[in-house]
Amino acid sequence: MPAMTIAELEAFLKREFPEIRGLGVRVERVDEGSILVRLPANAGNLRPGGTISGPSMMTLVDLAMYLLLLAQIGPVALAVTTSLNIDFLRKPPLGDLLAEGELLKLGKRMAIGDFRLRGASGGPVVARASVTYSIPPREAGASQ
Amino acid sequence: MPAMTIAELEAFLKREFPEIRGLGVRVERVDEGSILVRLPANAGNLRPGGTISGPSMMTLVDLAMYLLLLAQIGPVALAVTTSLNIDFLRKPPLGDLLAEGELLKLGKRMAIGDFRLRGASGGPVVARASVTYSIPPREAGASQ
Amino acid sequence: MPAMTIAELEAFLKREFPEIRGLGVRVERVDEGSILVRLPANAGNLRPGGTISGPSMMTLVDLAMYLLLLAQIGPVALAVTTSLNIDFLRKPPLGDLLAEGELLKLGKRMAIGDFRLRGASGGPVVARASVTYSIPPREAGASQ
Amino acid sequence: MPAMTIAELEAFLKREFPEIRGLGVRVERVDEGSILVRLPANAGNLRPGGTISGPSMMTLVDLAMYLLLLAQIGPVALAVTTSLNIDFLRKPPLGDLLAEGELLKLGKRMAIGDFRLRGASGGPVVARASVTYSIPPREAGASQ
Repeated sequence: MPAMTIAELEAFLKREFPEIRGLGVRVERVDEGSILVRLPANAGNLRPGGTISGPSMMTLVDLAMYLLLLAQIGPVALAVTTSLNIDFLRKPPLGDLLAEGELLKLGKRMAIGDFRLRGASGGPVVARASVTYSIPPREAGASQ
Repeated sequence: MPAMTIAELEAFLKREFPEIRGLGVRVERVDEGSILVRLPANAGNLRPGGTISGPSMMTLVDLAMYLLLLAQIGPVALAVTTSLNIDFLRKPPLGDLLAEGELLKLGKRMAIGDFRLRGASGGPVVARASVTYSIPPREAGASQ
Repeated sequence: MPAMTIAELEAFLKREFPEIRGLGVRVERVDEGSILVRLPANAGNLRPGGTISGPSMMTLVDLAMYLLLLAQIGPVALAVTTSLNIDFLRKPPLGDLLAEGELLKLGKRMAIGDFRLRGASGGPVVARASVTYSIPPREAGASQ
Repeated sequence: MPAMTIAELEAFLKREFPEIRGLGVRVERVDEGSILVRLPANAGNLRPGGTISGPSMMTLVDLAMYLLLLAQIGPVALAVTTSLNIDFLRKPPLGDLLAEGELLKLGKRMAIGDFRLRGASGGPVVARASVTYSIPPREAGASQ
């Protein structure tokens, strides 16, 4: 069972990161090793032509990994991204995007997740990404 | 001499990508192989604690590479990012960030740039990134 | 149906790349979008402690992607790696390694594959990697 | 002043990693934040056409980062690569390759280096790479 429920994850996010509330990211599913997150298409994250922009996809992946990690270890605001790698494979379809992520490693000091992005109505993978987070030592305030 | 001046780059950006106007990115310098771009710190791109967030840094790098490429080949709206890799090395200082980029390869079909981000008031590198863009064939509309 | 069978792939490899014959890589399975390749553990590719080394894993991934691409488009000696990204997740077990790869994109000019490495006797993923190949234009000798 | 001299680095390498002795890698220069390493062209590391192969370049980068790290912290055999990212920009020239690396971060738990590869006789960058190593805790045997 995850350390945090969907409702707890979303409440934590709104409290700690009010500036990304506008993204409207929603957790569709989370368990002890994977997550499914939806990014609604809206005026702020589109590129010319109406599809979701590259920077919005990177923000989605970074956020989805953070949520996946929190779901395992509980609300640790100090976890930070140390690396992100993304391949943009094809133009996304119009509409919402789904990011599906799998936790490949959860160590004491770092976590690595692997993500695939698709249009919410199906179709081929539009981007793949991997993300590494550094986890602060539990006993202290962490200087990364 | 670059194919586009700073004024032309910024005008192109405002016309084609109105949604990122809010970022307030400014080109400080551009020549036939490098670019220096400033991201002003503002309410929208900060993380808790007041430093510029990871997603804002990724957006900055993606945009800086696009501008570096346009400066060489002229206004080609169809160039698209195919891959971005970033290492976050340390917490950025409070205040604006500078992204300095170098064009490592400009081929007929792809371009690769290498970037380092620092606080505008100096200090160590806070992130490094490399970005690959696909360049559409000149004669056609490009299907990537 | 793939453009090349396992026997054709292995014969091509021996003829064109005699220097890697020593690796002893074997194609266990290949179809129109995925591949499974085995790297036998042997004296030349081990690190202290007897597990397969990082450089050997990178060589395995690069080669597996080349084979996966050839299986789709036929024997094109001029396809070249343009980028490789690998995360080493944990120490591999003693013994052979298996690399399982999926072709995420096969365009006219580039191909991208996604790989996971595991011990041949099972267990968790020991490394994940993504690889990009540039495909030469069919009509000419290709200068990338 | 580095924690290990060139002679000490090369002796450590031969003792701990006899299997890569055949590569013939030579440290040309090392100081408190950078390194220059030479990979001699020889029959074992060439691809068809006589230029140094992609896998040999990846091995060179991994090894150069290991040496750069050892030069700072002394002989720690347990440091391990956690991630490597490389862009192959153009075909290398015939002959030896030089890898020049810079240590971008040396933390308590991880180190990140940035590398550029060129032909020994000059010319443009043929590959760029970044590498992350995990540094074992000093007091214990490290389980990564």
